[in-house]
Amino acid sequence: MRAVRLVEVGKPLKLQDIDVPKPKGTQVLVKVEAAGVCHSDVHMRQGRFGNLRVVEDLGVKLPVTLGHEIAGKIVEMGDEVTGYSKGDTVAVNPWQGEGNCYYCRIGEEHLCDMPRWLGINYDGAYAEYVLVPHYKYMYKLKRLNAIEASPLTCSGITTYRAVRKASLDPSKTLVVIGAGGGLGTMAVQIAKAVSGATVIGVDVRDEAIEAAKKAGADYVINASSQDPLIEIRKITEGKGADAVIDLNNSEKTLSLYPKVLAKQGKYVMVGLFGADLHYHAPLITLGEVQFVGSLVGNQADFLGIMKLAEMGKVKPMVTKTMKLEDANEAIDNLENFRAVGRQVLIP
Amino acid sequence: MRAVRLVEVGKPLKLQDIDVPKPKGTQVLVKVEAAGVCHSDVHMRQGRFGNLRVVEDLGVKLPVTLGHEIAGKIVEMGDEVTGYSKGDTVAVNPWQGEGNCYYCRIGEEHLCDMPRWLGINYDGAYAEYVLVPHYKYMYKLKRLNAIEASPLTCSGITTYRAVRKASLDPSKTLVVIGAGGGLGTMAVQIAKAVSGATVIGVDVRDEAIEAAKKAGADYVINASSQDPLIEIRKITEGKGADAVIDLNNSEKTLSLYPKVLAKQGKYVMVGLFGADLHYHAPLITLGEVQFVGSLVGNQADFLGIMKLAEMGKVKPMVTKTMKLEDANEAIDNLENFRAVGRQVLIP
Amino acid sequence: MRAVRLVEVGKPLKLQDIDVPKPKGTQVLVKVEAAGVCHSDVHMRQGRFGNLRVVEDLGVKLPVTLGHEIAGKIVEMGDEVTGYSKGDTVAVNPWQGEGNCYYCRIGEEHLCDMPRWLGINYDGAYAEYVLVPHYKYMYKLKRLNAIEASPLTCSGITTYRAVRKASLDPSKTLVVIGAGGGLGTMAVQIAKAVSGATVIGVDVRDEAIEAAKKAGADYVINASSQDPLIEIRKITEGKGADAVIDLNNSEKTLSLYPKVLAKQGKYVMVGLFGADLHYHAPLITLGEVQFVGSLVGNQADFLGIMKLAEMGKVKPMVTKTMKLEDANEAIDNLENFRAVGRQVLIP
Amino acid sequence: MRAVRLVEVGKPLKLQDIDVPKPKGTQVLVKVEAAGVCHSDVHMRQGRFGNLRVVEDLGVKLPVTLGHEIAGKIVEMGDEVTGYSKGDTVAVNPWQGEGNCYYCRIGEEHLCDMPRWLGINYDGAYAEYVLVPHYKYMYKLKRLNAIEASPLTCSGITTYRAVRKASLDPSKTLVVIGAGGGLGTMAVQIAKAVSGATVIGVDVRDEAIEAAKKAGADYVINASSQDPLIEIRKITEGKGADAVIDLNNSEKTLSLYPKVLAKQGKYVMVGLFGADLHYHAPLITLGEVQFVGSLVGNQADFLGIMKLAEMGKVKPMVTKTMKLEDANEAIDNLENFRAVGRQVLIP
Repeated sequence: MRAVRLVEVGKPLKLQDIDVPKPKGTQVLVKVEAAGVCHSDVHMRQGRFGNLRVVEDLGVKLPVTLGHEIAGKIVEMGDEVTGYSKGDTVAVNPWQGEGNCYYCRIGEEHLCDMPRWLGINYDGAYAEYVLVPHYKYMYKLKRLNAIEASPLTCSGITTYRAVRKASLDPSKTLVVIGAGGGLGTMAVQIAKAVSGATVIGVDVRDEAIEAAKKAGADYVINASSQDPLIEIRKITEGKGADAVIDLNNSEKTLSLYPKVLAKQGKYVMVGLFGADLHYHAPLITLGEVQFVGSLVGNQADFLGIMKLAEMGKVKPMVTKTMKLEDANEAIDNLENFRAVGRQVLIP
Repeated sequence: MRAVRLVEVGKPLKLQDIDVPKPKGTQVLVKVEAAGVCHSDVHMRQGRFGNLRVVEDLGVKLPVTLGHEIAGKIVEMGDEVTGYSKGDTVAVNPWQGEGNCYYCRIGEEHLCDMPRWLGINYDGAYAEYVLVPHYKYMYKLKRLNAIEASPLTCSGITTYRAVRKASLDPSKTLVVIGAGGGLGTMAVQIAKAVSGATVIGVDVRDEAIEAAKKAGADYVINASSQDPLIEIRKITEGKGADAVIDLNNSEKTLSLYPKVLAKQGKYVMVGLFGADLHYHAPLITLGEVQFVGSLVGNQADFLGIMKLAEMGKVKPMVTKTMKLEDANEAIDNLENFRAVGRQVLIP
Repeated sequence: MRAVRLVEVGKPLKLQDIDVPKPKGTQVLVKVEAAGVCHSDVHMRQGRFGNLRVVEDLGVKLPVTLGHEIAGKIVEMGDEVTGYSKGDTVAVNPWQGEGNCYYCRIGEEHLCDMPRWLGINYDGAYAEYVLVPHYKYMYKLKRLNAIEASPLTCSGITTYRAVRKASLDPSKTLVVIGAGGGLGTMAVQIAKAVSGATVIGVDVRDEAIEAAKKAGADYVINASSQDPLIEIRKITEGKGADAVIDLNNSEKTLSLYPKVLAKQGKYVMVGLFGADLHYHAPLITLGEVQFVGSLVGNQADFLGIMKLAEMGKVKPMVTKTMKLEDANEAIDNLENFRAVGRQVLIP
Repeated sequence: MRAVRLVEVGKPLKLQDIDVPKPKGTQVLVKVEAAGVCHSDVHMRQGRFGNLRVVEDLGVKLPVTLGHEIAGKIVEMGDEVTGYSKGDTVAVNPWQGEGNCYYCRIGEEHLCDMPRWLGINYDGAYAEYVLVPHYKYMYKLKRLNAIEASPLTCSGITTYRAVRKASLDPSKTLVVIGAGGGLGTMAVQIAKAVSGATVIGVDVRDEAIEAAKKAGADYVINASSQDPLIEIRKITEGKGADAVIDLNNSEKTLSLYPKVLAKQGKYVMVGLFGADLHYHAPLITLGEVQFVGSLVGNQADFLGIMKLAEMGKVKPMVTKTMKLEDANEAIDNLENFRAVGRQVLIP
């Protein structure tokens, strides 16, 4: 089958012909109908997340088929699979663990000591078929189609978990940095759907501001023409933001937005732009503020976002479909901030 | 009455003669029997916590009587006080709020927008008498005496809250930095009393290591002769520490100990040594680690530590009594790391 | 001033002329502009909540002015009040505590050992003026008027807390029993606003079913013509309800609805109809189900519901205004299930 | 191999000769070195837990080898097993799920919709060998031997979870009903090890009272000679118990102990004696008390109790070893309350 693979870091992905896997036991073979292209694929191809090298530090073995936003149709199942049928359209949670480590046992298997991440260190969805190691990682789609569903398995789950970590309630205010992008509009929608919190969307371009507004942000701030510190203090009547979700974590955002935090405010760090966090420690202690990392999500997060989207409580991301062979072009678009809407490959 | 007061920052405290306050309504007049001397008093006298200036940034109005570790005997009560009698020996929670702000309403009144902190911006216990604004801030002592109890209202409550924020359970490991000092031995004891976690005490002097061991640490590390990173990885079988309580937050500790965190590890920041936190953001996201400030405690924390100490489940700090007039000397000792045991002034 | 008071249980309330209170210290005098009539007032007048007698068991001293759904205008303030001005329109949280007990100290002052509940054991709002003991129990209204706001201080806060106790998330389903009534429509709205959960409204009359639907219920069940057990299992695909909010707790509801619980389901008990809970203990253990009482709310709940309503995220209850003198008639209407919309007295 | 099996409910277990299973994939074959006999085995043999019938209502298929307190040595492993070696001594968590259902996905797999409970509906440890479906359910023993460890996988995990559900902290008081029995002494020890709460042990025989005291109870009450209501109110200075762990849930305990609850008290229901819970609903609402079922435990609980015991923070139960052939006699002893210490079968 055709598969687009990372063979060498720093080089374009290569289209290769590899064997179609044969599922056994609990495994399921899914014909890929949609494979979303994620900003992490830029980092994978570059070979690094900030200072962390994909091969040397994160232990990824090459070659590997990328593609971790996965949806498709079941075509074959191992003999231990129950509850699914051939022809079911499913989304696949790619953030799988091996099961035995501490994190797997406490239900946080996306942090597994021996992770099995489809599209990162296990073969993913930039291919005609993907092998799912266990049927428990699938979610049967009823209303959404594969193209709508695929971005949920990374962009959706990631923002869902970040919102959950923000500990919102109706008396609180959330700031989403990068609110007009794919993840941003998802974060805004989720926050509106699952909390009664006030949501402020921050972005730097007019069309992004429009997108954030359309996603439901109660307030929007264009950081290229307004001072976010002043605006956020104004909106919150001087209190500051109870939570910030930073989808960039760039030098720019990290130097500015910790200052908008209210006392006990939570700064949820999602973006992997590769900058450092610098902050005066007494401000952390005296204000009891928190900086918390948030990485993709666990099985509970997967269930949550899938149910939310299937119930129509958040709208799928706007997508643009492309051919499998266009994978490098799609990644180029992300790398150069040229993408409009989520790019989804259809093998 | 005699009172030792901060009149000008950067200068020694002054002994002044001021009026004995007259309690009314819910107020209580307590004859001070013990006033612990805390490291914050060093910062108060210096006039700054790191970059934050006590007068300009934190809004403290001078002169003010210091002393926020307070215990004594009730001598007079306003007409709305119930549940207490003259002669009762009480400890006093000095971390009081005004009541109307968001933080007070959600039970976090130590973070009040208009704080009423006895010994910081309201007159405290370095005096013959202290006026307690409301009887609800007192805890009636049964087994402990005033000298044993007074350090609990700051050192005790602070470490109690820090341990609570560490989210411990028996499958986790806690590292206490500065484990052999006054706060450190308290943190070790509390962690042992309220969680089944493994406790590692880190310090730099042999006698401090001994003290940490005596306080109940399961393991101790002398950071001046051992490599904490290697030792902690060894003890935790490669996982790292699930929580760190940093009682210093000095340049030295903040440059080293974030690295000992396990995935989802929590770095609880208590110390006010005034350094900055610098950390690579992708490490925060990929490991889902957390940096959380912890400041003194709220009324629930006060109840918790008082009950714990009264039940004998943690032992009071070793104390050394001094005269009220020796306040500056006691603060000098702390400033120069010469204090052995908690210094408690007896007016 | 005119005040409608409970003078003797089992008898109609009496209109009396009493002195206008004079606020001092932290107290505030509010001119009542709206006083909602609550089903608890039926129980107060009857003199019992189930087996519990208002005077003998709950310790209420007569006579007392009823009326605990309070909103109005500030007319006079004690000298310690800050942050408010004469003329401010405010809602008042009537569920006040004395401050010193365990529950007050942990932020659950509605459960105070010596409660100060306005309209229950302290004079309430069925009068021209009400004395608020401390300004921290007020919420300054900006968008809502007094009539819209008054039911929030009991009906609103109660359902807000109940929803919070239901521990909802998007993967869960909530059943609201009595979904078409005043509290029911509020509970449905709040659940929709603060969680992404699926909400099923159950009621017994067609117009109530309509009201529940209009409030936003994802599904409705008319229990007089449909079998709730069958319908709920169908909607939840066999799983059952993750949470039930029972606004009645009548013999009928308690004999039926515990059976709809999913494993780990929570049965939140709000209604005070006075029946007993009977359930087979092994079903509780084997299914890890929970029965949890929920009573009005604390200051955090008050903040939450007020913010939610002020932001327009839940709509105020439909109200019908009546004169102060009509208090007994309004209570009669509730007692005989004749009320349509929330009855609000305007003194 | 020899296996003691439930062939027909209401009849003695039968010793049968069955094939030794052959492990493949993730499976592990463990030579049983210790199989604890649990009170549930009485119910299994009787064929019912209260009104619930083991075969008809709980879906157990006969014959099945009982024995769910499992420890032994690894003798053979499937080809996907990593992290373990032949000869390792392990304890086995028998409360396994199938993986795909809601409860498995949220980390509560002991409540799986298609449970795989070793010794209940899958072959257990009353046999020479037991087949463990996945190596992630094992815990490698370092300090404890198999006999000490086996009761932890049911008695230990069950009380660990119950204590966790009791939401204890140093300001709270826990009452353990049946504190002198095997589970009771374990619950007392765990509560002491993981919380700073005050623990009151209640039992009815003098030797049980002694055992509870020895396990570390701060207070003990002999309910056959003292009035628990009076004593508990006295110890808690009128407040009542913040939590009760009822290890019986008999008619007697359920009619008495809900009354000892403080406001917001939690009644954790563990015992499967088969009685009903009857309680006046307004008392539940007005006191915000809670009744919560607690059933064995999940993988996190398993980790927790194993670590706690391996660290020596709780002592294993006193055990009495018997031969595999004595299984019925051991169950008789439990049925007639004649057992002293935990009976452990050694095949």
